Amino acid sequence: MKIEPRTLKGFRDFLPKEARKRQYVLSILKEVFESYGFEPLETPALEYDEILSGKYGEEGDKLMYRFEDNGGRKVALRYDQTVPLARVIAQYANDLPLPFKRYQIQNVYRAENTQKGRYREFLQVDLDNIGSEDPISDAEIIAIASECLDRLGMNDFKVLINDRNIFYELTENGVNEKDLNSILRTIDKIEKIGREGVLNELSEKTGSNEKATEILTILEQRQMNFNVEGILYYLKSMGVKNAEFTPLLARGLDYYTSTIFEIKVDGYDSSIAGGGRYDNLIGMFSGKEIPAVGFAFGFDRLMEVLDEKNLFSANIKGIDVLITFDESDSEREFPYEAANILRESGFNVEQFTDNRAIDKQLKYADKKQIPFVLIAEYGELKLKNMKTGEQKKVSLNELPNAIKQI
Amino acid sequence: MKIEPRTLKGFRDFLPKEARKRQYVLSILKEVFESYGFEPLETPALEYDEILSGKYGEEGDKLMYRFEDNGGRKVALRYDQTVPLARVIAQYANDLPLPFKRYQIQNVYRAENTQKGRYREFLQVDLDNIGSEDPISDAEIIAIASECLDRLGMNDFKVLINDRNIFYELTENGVNEKDLNSILRTIDKIEKIGREGVLNELSEKTGSNEKATEILTILEQRQMNFNVEGILYYLKSMGVKNAEFTPLLARGLDYYTSTIFEIKVDGYDSSIAGGGRYDNLIGMFSGKEIPAVGFAFGFDRLMEVLDEKNLFSANIKGIDVLITFDESDSEREFPYEAANILRESGFNVEQFTDNRAIDKQLKYADKKQIPFVLIAEYGELKLKNMKTGEQKKVSLNELPNAIKQI
Repeated sequence: MKIEPRTLKGFRDFLPKEARKRQYVLSILKEVFESYGFEPLETPALEYDEILSGKYGEEGDKLMYRFEDNGGRKVALRYDQTVPLARVIAQYANDLPLPFKRYQIQNVYRAENTQKGRYREFLQVDLDNIGSEDPISDAEIIAIASECLDRLGMNDFKVLINDRNIFYELTENGVNEKDLNSILRTIDKIEKIGREGVLNELSEKTGSNEKATEILTILEQRQMNFNVEGILYYLKSMGVKNAEFTPLLARGLDYYTSTIFEIKVDGYDSSIAGGGRYDNLIGMFSGKEIPAVGFAFGFDRLMEVLDEKNLFSANIKGIDVLITFDESDSEREFPYEAANILRESGFNVEQFTDNRAIDKQLKYADKKQIPFVLIAEYGELKLKNMKTGEQKKVSLNELPNAIKQI
Repeated sequence: MKIEPRTLKGFRDFLPKEARKRQYVLSILKEVFESYGFEPLETPALEYDEILSGKYGEEGDKLMYRFEDNGGRKVALRYDQTVPLARVIAQYANDLPLPFKRYQIQNVYRAENTQKGRYREFLQVDLDNIGSEDPISDAEIIAIASECLDRLGMNDFKVLINDRNIFYELTENGVNEKDLNSILRTIDKIEKIGREGVLNELSEKTGSNEKATEILTILEQRQMNFNVEGILYYLKSMGVKNAEFTPLLARGLDYYTSTIFEIKVDGYDSSIAGGGRYDNLIGMFSGKEIPAVGFAFGFDRLMEVLDEKNLFSANIKGIDVLITFDESDSEREFPYEAANILRESGFNVEQFTDNRAIDKQLKYADKKQIPFVLIAEYGELKLKNMKTGEQKKVSLNELPNAIKQI
């Protein structure tokens, strides 16, 4: 029976062109993370089911990939990187002095509805500082996210900052604590549905237009508190100038305990990075309260924005030179010497490894958008610029300069 | 109920020290691969079960992680990277001009017996040239593997090369074709059980001592064929000098069709890399014969050998400087300026982000083996060499040179 070659629904192959872009972005992110002293951590794709179950609410339990392995163990695929981090913190307490500053870049698995354009395997880029409670650690996290975007060539983003505690003060204005999260979820939609939309939804939830208007007005007129002030001060010292207090910023997730922030790019509704302080989560396995602050890039979103802003092409190193192959000429060593000379100068050099006519080899270079071809024929080397068509004879010791000049 | 934090049996966490080593090795491997014009490919962790089942023999079907997803689809976790590659070659035939030279570095999942010291999640590092049949492509694969080891600082390895066709000629000496694979598996053990051991096992299998001796003698006296000669010639041109024809090299896997090779390090029984030509596998989904040659590093094995040979410490970039934090001093900007100056000069700089006594911060630096601490106190900067204990006052504009001098 012939089996149709197809990718599992909701999953993706990354062919070289896309895979290279991903590698380029990741290499920059890692370099920035490391320059701030954050260290890499890897955890397994599979965990005992009991480690992950019940940690992500009802939705998480529904979307998690869970099964029994061949040994009858109940296991589950990585759903995020925070619960595994909490496990690691408890399990290796003696090996990891706090603050533990780590980044983690691995795929997570969620059986999402693919009709919403969501993927079931996607890369998470997380960076967290575990153990620090001073606002300088909140500021540092934001500075790192911001520097990553600078380094990727983005210059039209801003950082929105708020403190969840500001919302808790609503309980002093007659809002029930149990209704707070529901109200936050509505306020979180202000960019999508506008002020009127939020007012309508709040009216429904609180049962009165007056109450809704009161809540929204209180929040809009709210001044920043001491925590946000501190973070903004540190951010300025660290060189981040595009951060602003945003009293209506709510963020969807329930687990943040004070600082929250998002990074938005001009012209895009949804944020490309977000994070905050979550002091009650990391201690879940160790039974201690361990302060934590972190952020995550929406990696697919980030890739999309970089693509649309054309921030890739010039920065991605592909294949620089193709050296042709002539079977009848195959006992001469100069093409291999040429390849070595070029590689030692930092060029990526593909040697054609199939006995085909030269014009087919040139077509191959063209299809792969390789900018230079070194034609090795009859004991001679000719360098061809594939863009201009220009071609000239070169000797071994004219390489690699000839490439820079042609 | 308190849940014990533990890693799933057969799986591993990589804490920063190990994770850094892995990243260092992978960055070198990728750099070498790219310098030869090989391109990255990523495929999903999950595939339709029908894509993977039956492709790895009985053992594979037994060790594969298979389950039904929430939508009732039969799925399986990646078991190797060759079958997914074959799927990609068939599925994207129009986008991937042949030869397609790709590398792929992802985890694979096998429910191995953990008592044998095997892991159930491990990284595979594969590099393959799909579509070339000329021996130059076999040579290039070997040259790449060899350059990777050079670049990692290994200098005591050799490349053993053979051609499977040499064994098929045994059928002219009275060996049944159906017994050939079983005989190869015995010959493959010669490094482990010695010449006597192989003779004993061959005697059992062939039913006579004479036959066993004849087979082994024929193989030992075998001269290299045209294919191996060509590969050795090309290797010399490419600068690989430590390759040798090894007529008893057999390799375990059945699917190789001609060239096979292994890289062995002095003092180690098992090889750290191996590969060969397999012309009948990649076409499994496309129904065409597509030539292919490739190799894989045993990544865990490679890491082990590099560790034992002490080839890591000097090459791995960790955190260079810790800058201390003094809450009472927190409104001064110079520590952040110092951090930025050092980062711009390429240093990895951790800023301590918790309000603790200076001696605790120094202890933290010591435990994390950070070589330099910049003590920011009372508006002054003092640079401390953690190894010698030496300490001196520095100004912002003496950085970063002060670090190189102390």
